[in-house]
Amino acid sequence: MNSFGNLFRISTFGESHGKAIGGIVDGCPSNLVVDYDLIQQQLALRQKDPLDINQRKELDNVEFVSGIMHGKTTGAPIAFFIQNKDTKSEDYTQESTVLKPSHGHFSYWKKYNIYDYRGGGRASARETACRVVCGCFAMMFLKQYNIHIEAFTTQIGHVKLKNHFCSYDSAEAQKNALHCPDNATAQEMLAFLSEIAVSKDSIGCVIGCLISNVPAGLGEPVFDKLSANLAKAMLSIPAAKGFEYGSGFLSASKRGSEINDLFTHDFHTKTNYSGGIQAGISNGNPVYFSVPFKPIPSIMQEQPSIDLDGNPCVLKAAGRHDVCVSPRVVPVVEAMAAITIVDHLLYYNAYKTNKF
Amino acid sequence: MNSFGNLFRISTFGESHGKAIGGIVDGCPSNLVVDYDLIQQQLALRQKDPLDINQRKELDNVEFVSGIMHGKTTGAPIAFFIQNKDTKSEDYTQESTVLKPSHGHFSYWKKYNIYDYRGGGRASARETACRVVCGCFAMMFLKQYNIHIEAFTTQIGHVKLKNHFCSYDSAEAQKNALHCPDNATAQEMLAFLSEIAVSKDSIGCVIGCLISNVPAGLGEPVFDKLSANLAKAMLSIPAAKGFEYGSGFLSASKRGSEINDLFTHDFHTKTNYSGGIQAGISNGNPVYFSVPFKPIPSIMQEQPSIDLDGNPCVLKAAGRHDVCVSPRVVPVVEAMAAITIVDHLLYYNAYKTNKF
Amino acid sequence: MNSFGNLFRISTFGESHGKAIGGIVDGCPSNLVVDYDLIQQQLALRQKDPLDINQRKELDNVEFVSGIMHGKTTGAPIAFFIQNKDTKSEDYTQESTVLKPSHGHFSYWKKYNIYDYRGGGRASARETACRVVCGCFAMMFLKQYNIHIEAFTTQIGHVKLKNHFCSYDSAEAQKNALHCPDNATAQEMLAFLSEIAVSKDSIGCVIGCLISNVPAGLGEPVFDKLSANLAKAMLSIPAAKGFEYGSGFLSASKRGSEINDLFTHDFHTKTNYSGGIQAGISNGNPVYFSVPFKPIPSIMQEQPSIDLDGNPCVLKAAGRHDVCVSPRVVPVVEAMAAITIVDHLLYYNAYKTNKF
Amino acid sequence: MNSFGNLFRISTFGESHGKAIGGIVDGCPSNLVVDYDLIQQQLALRQKDPLDINQRKELDNVEFVSGIMHGKTTGAPIAFFIQNKDTKSEDYTQESTVLKPSHGHFSYWKKYNIYDYRGGGRASARETACRVVCGCFAMMFLKQYNIHIEAFTTQIGHVKLKNHFCSYDSAEAQKNALHCPDNATAQEMLAFLSEIAVSKDSIGCVIGCLISNVPAGLGEPVFDKLSANLAKAMLSIPAAKGFEYGSGFLSASKRGSEINDLFTHDFHTKTNYSGGIQAGISNGNPVYFSVPFKPIPSIMQEQPSIDLDGNPCVLKAAGRHDVCVSPRVVPVVEAMAAITIVDHLLYYNAYKTNKF
Repeated sequence: MNSFGNLFRISTFGESHGKAIGGIVDGCPSNLVVDYDLIQQQLALRQKDPLDINQRKELDNVEFVSGIMHGKTTGAPIAFFIQNKDTKSEDYTQESTVLKPSHGHFSYWKKYNIYDYRGGGRASARETACRVVCGCFAMMFLKQYNIHIEAFTTQIGHVKLKNHFCSYDSAEAQKNALHCPDNATAQEMLAFLSEIAVSKDSIGCVIGCLISNVPAGLGEPVFDKLSANLAKAMLSIPAAKGFEYGSGFLSASKRGSEINDLFTHDFHTKTNYSGGIQAGISNGNPVYFSVPFKPIPSIMQEQPSIDLDGNPCVLKAAGRHDVCVSPRVVPVVEAMAAITIVDHLLYYNAYKTNKF
Repeated sequence: MNSFGNLFRISTFGESHGKAIGGIVDGCPSNLVVDYDLIQQQLALRQKDPLDINQRKELDNVEFVSGIMHGKTTGAPIAFFIQNKDTKSEDYTQESTVLKPSHGHFSYWKKYNIYDYRGGGRASARETACRVVCGCFAMMFLKQYNIHIEAFTTQIGHVKLKNHFCSYDSAEAQKNALHCPDNATAQEMLAFLSEIAVSKDSIGCVIGCLISNVPAGLGEPVFDKLSANLAKAMLSIPAAKGFEYGSGFLSASKRGSEINDLFTHDFHTKTNYSGGIQAGISNGNPVYFSVPFKPIPSIMQEQPSIDLDGNPCVLKAAGRHDVCVSPRVVPVVEAMAAITIVDHLLYYNAYKTNKF
Repeated sequence: MNSFGNLFRISTFGESHGKAIGGIVDGCPSNLVVDYDLIQQQLALRQKDPLDINQRKELDNVEFVSGIMHGKTTGAPIAFFIQNKDTKSEDYTQESTVLKPSHGHFSYWKKYNIYDYRGGGRASARETACRVVCGCFAMMFLKQYNIHIEAFTTQIGHVKLKNHFCSYDSAEAQKNALHCPDNATAQEMLAFLSEIAVSKDSIGCVIGCLISNVPAGLGEPVFDKLSANLAKAMLSIPAAKGFEYGSGFLSASKRGSEINDLFTHDFHTKTNYSGGIQAGISNGNPVYFSVPFKPIPSIMQEQPSIDLDGNPCVLKAAGRHDVCVSPRVVPVVEAMAAITIVDHLLYYNAYKTNKF
Repeated sequence: MNSFGNLFRISTFGESHGKAIGGIVDGCPSNLVVDYDLIQQQLALRQKDPLDINQRKELDNVEFVSGIMHGKTTGAPIAFFIQNKDTKSEDYTQESTVLKPSHGHFSYWKKYNIYDYRGGGRASARETACRVVCGCFAMMFLKQYNIHIEAFTTQIGHVKLKNHFCSYDSAEAQKNALHCPDNATAQEMLAFLSEIAVSKDSIGCVIGCLISNVPAGLGEPVFDKLSANLAKAMLSIPAAKGFEYGSGFLSASKRGSEINDLFTHDFHTKTNYSGGIQAGISNGNPVYFSVPFKPIPSIMQEQPSIDLDGNPCVLKAAGRHDVCVSPRVVPVVEAMAAITIVDHLLYYNAYKTNKF
């Protein structure tokens, strides 16, 4: 449904063209100092246009209505909303009866037997702003454990990092609009994005994510594996098409003798093909994974389609569309990863049998 | 935890070297005729050794203790046991204090603060036999809807299908031990598996899965997307390292104009890069996905390791080990897919507002 | 946590003295026509002061922000806010360090290690306004099934109905401020409430609830019995101290031969000591139950207490307080009952194995 | 469904006349020493016939198949089964087409559209043996916190304790077959039970339960109140008709000034009308509650009824039946209480923000 997580549970609501979107964080530990700067910073990243084409004048403004007292969390549900200020609903008029290819309109219509022609409705990427806000509370909690989460753009179209994203200095990622850990590659990516924009098209990408200082023992066998819940978290992001952790798809062509991670004397491992997770449980090494995203289906070209009655028609280009989910999806990946880790961390804490 | 699904919920229990393993199917609709042949067939496939090296004399025998009357499901939980008959616990003596690389022993130990030296304990692939049994009940239900699920071996090591697995005649897959839809490729794979066995190593693989006749409307926005729950289901399988559906990782290098699925007049689409799922909800086209599996970490070679005190030592080869999870994982992928689809199907039914 | 129900799930948020309270209905079937009048009517009842002492000038105003389009539910989460307009926070100043007897301040403080001195915080009965709103959506759905829910005041202090509340004409309940189905008793109750008010005290009550036209088959064995979930729903209401259905506590002094419900030829029963529920599953007869509520702990008298450091002090009377939860709790009981029934109804629908 | 609890989750399976019944405890903390004596003692109590009429020769024998190693819990699911040895299925032949009054047969039939004529099927009280086993693991965990749970028979028919059950010396309850804390009353109850048996009837009862040393802070607002989940737990027990905690139904006739619990200097309270729970959260005082049970509907008298076609017929007395659920339900109440407390305790632990 519209909730994620068990002990740290987020719920989101709102459509792209309704009055507001928002969410609730339930199960947030009390007495966390709310880091409003972090929230603004992550929301700003989610609104970033690397090509400065689709200028959004106003930053999303989060209004908290509960769960916080004197700047600290109280343990009560933290509810917030973000007004939908600059909706240009007139842009969407023409689309009202035309099905958009590779877009959620059709499947939502079939599911609910009601057709919401305005923007993306509930399936709009706008919903992810709420995830970002919720994820910041998870990050505030993780900070106490020194657990750090960082996501990177590792591929856009044919332009990709030469080496594995974990091998770069992550500080480099802060220096470019795409959060790519190699600045030269980032420039190549930006140039390619411009080309795509000029050709009125969109392009796919891959986001990598590195989580450091994850303690050993997170993950619940056998179905709520840490890897399984990270996969679910990532695939719940609009446009995500897959997930791999550690050696991922490359594992298929490897031998056991090649990618078994041999132990070092301190109970860590010499290599980390396992991506920090063994049998679904973290083993104390860094956790890392990658997520591919498809090109945004809304493009500035005409596309042949059909209307609600099945009649052929042409979908005109309208509204305003990004050419790639990168870098806007970067903080969303970080948020969902943070929420997943906190949920497992709280489970872990629950079973530590220390007394009151 | 050890349960999966909400309305159709399976739970499994048992360790590889305990008395028995087993499971419960809760939420199975009543009056389903139990197809015992299907159960035996899927369990036999899960025990299949394509090289006929690790002969398992006895097939797993499932004993049902509840939820079935006169060959039909009653709606009550269906519990079953599978005795662990041919455990050779002596094989595992030496391993008692040596940590096995890329294996769940270490992370389980850290999580539970208790060290189970016998076989794989709860993390053993033996647990998947229970999933296969549970999955058969899901398949019995899906049969009413004519929904069909089939998994294939699409890659072993460097040997892979030339074309996408969905483009082959799936009947072909029944003709070889690997359930590979191209028999020539299957023979190449088998030859390569023999090489791996001779070199006392193991090898990774990719399993593809095709689900046909999925009606439009399955999947719950925005977190319980059909794609997200399939990803979780697959990543919960031992040795799984990733998931992709539709155009998957390839999407990253594609343009919107290339892979947008244009509608046909009958509300289906000309192409199916979406893998039958839009915005997390099935759209009436076939659903397909792929899952990479790592090589089995237990190999017939000595490996340097450490013991529980961190002292360096050598892990000898012992026990009996497959060289690849294919084809044994094929019915497990099918089972988890079936369970996921049924769970979403029951959700779908719940909200159909027809009266009593 | 702050959510209730599985398939029809409500979540509430907000503190009595924060900016706003609100909630989300997730899993509401689509295409329900929103009955705004019902919502206003139930909210008005929840704000009713039968003695007209604590005048609340403004009715709660519900602002919906999502899940509704052109007056119909869309299947997306329905989120709403109610502004906290007339909070008189100055009234609560003195209480800031004094523990209020039989009030949630202390246990919340111990749980969350943070002390919210303002009003009742999250434990305030104000939260129940959100339940009332959510419950109206459940009622809209139940209307399709002709299932009707009505709650009554059956006892206030020593004044109680002469006969079982189910034996009265429920239309009578609409004629008095207490929703008591016997008008003469209602007048006695009102007179007694006035006495209590004059004595600056508060008084307990019992609310009965009757649900008609519940089809047979609702309730999930063996833990999610319809009776068990109704009990949980009722005990979740502030000040509730118990629950009984059918013959309830009286059953303890009865013989089987006295209260076994014998079948009639149409599969109903001659008596209904079972309260419409057998073995946790509805049997087609009316469902009825009763819930006792304690007197409101905030009274207009001084009470000896301690402060946060354990020092003895006196709690002055401040703020404004009702003398009884009746009749304001009546629509809350109805709401929680409606939500519980709908949740079970959706479960019931899920397992009906009709095809698409 | 057939599971209860979230972090400490039990699942049960099995019908009264199938091969076996059994259950799973999932989420049991690791390294608990298994107290097999406790299990046998509680199971023996559940089989006790205070009148020594229905002699059951063999005690239930629990066979554990997983989750325990060298006498300690491993953190893996603990599965067990209990063979159904002395089922006398021939006793039930006649009942096959006759509906039993006030019994689950009818409602199960309507729900699942399949009629199980044997014994009580899933609704049989036999299922509670599994709850007792699961509850013992909860008790083993609670022992670490010095939390103690004890249930008592406080009323059978018209015979009831003169004073509140909490005011007696609980040690007294061990001295009689009914676990009644006043031995004189116990003898009166036993004499009355003999009368009921002679009259071939059955009788209702009330069970009280006292939980000592519950720390402040257990219970999750606002829906998962400790009181709400205890109520659900109790109402899930077969034949339970209600629940009250603290001053319960008596609260309805009390004034705030009478039953407000004033604080003592050590943050406890002078009285405990609150039953140890304020606003759904434990406050450090003892938790106590009462549960009424109806007379067992199966009696040794003929009863008029109908068959599956609605034809009038007579239900003969057959099988063997207790005359009262007391004392057999005593360990079931204790088990469900223990499971509920542990579940909340694990939640409590989860949110304590101490680091690793």
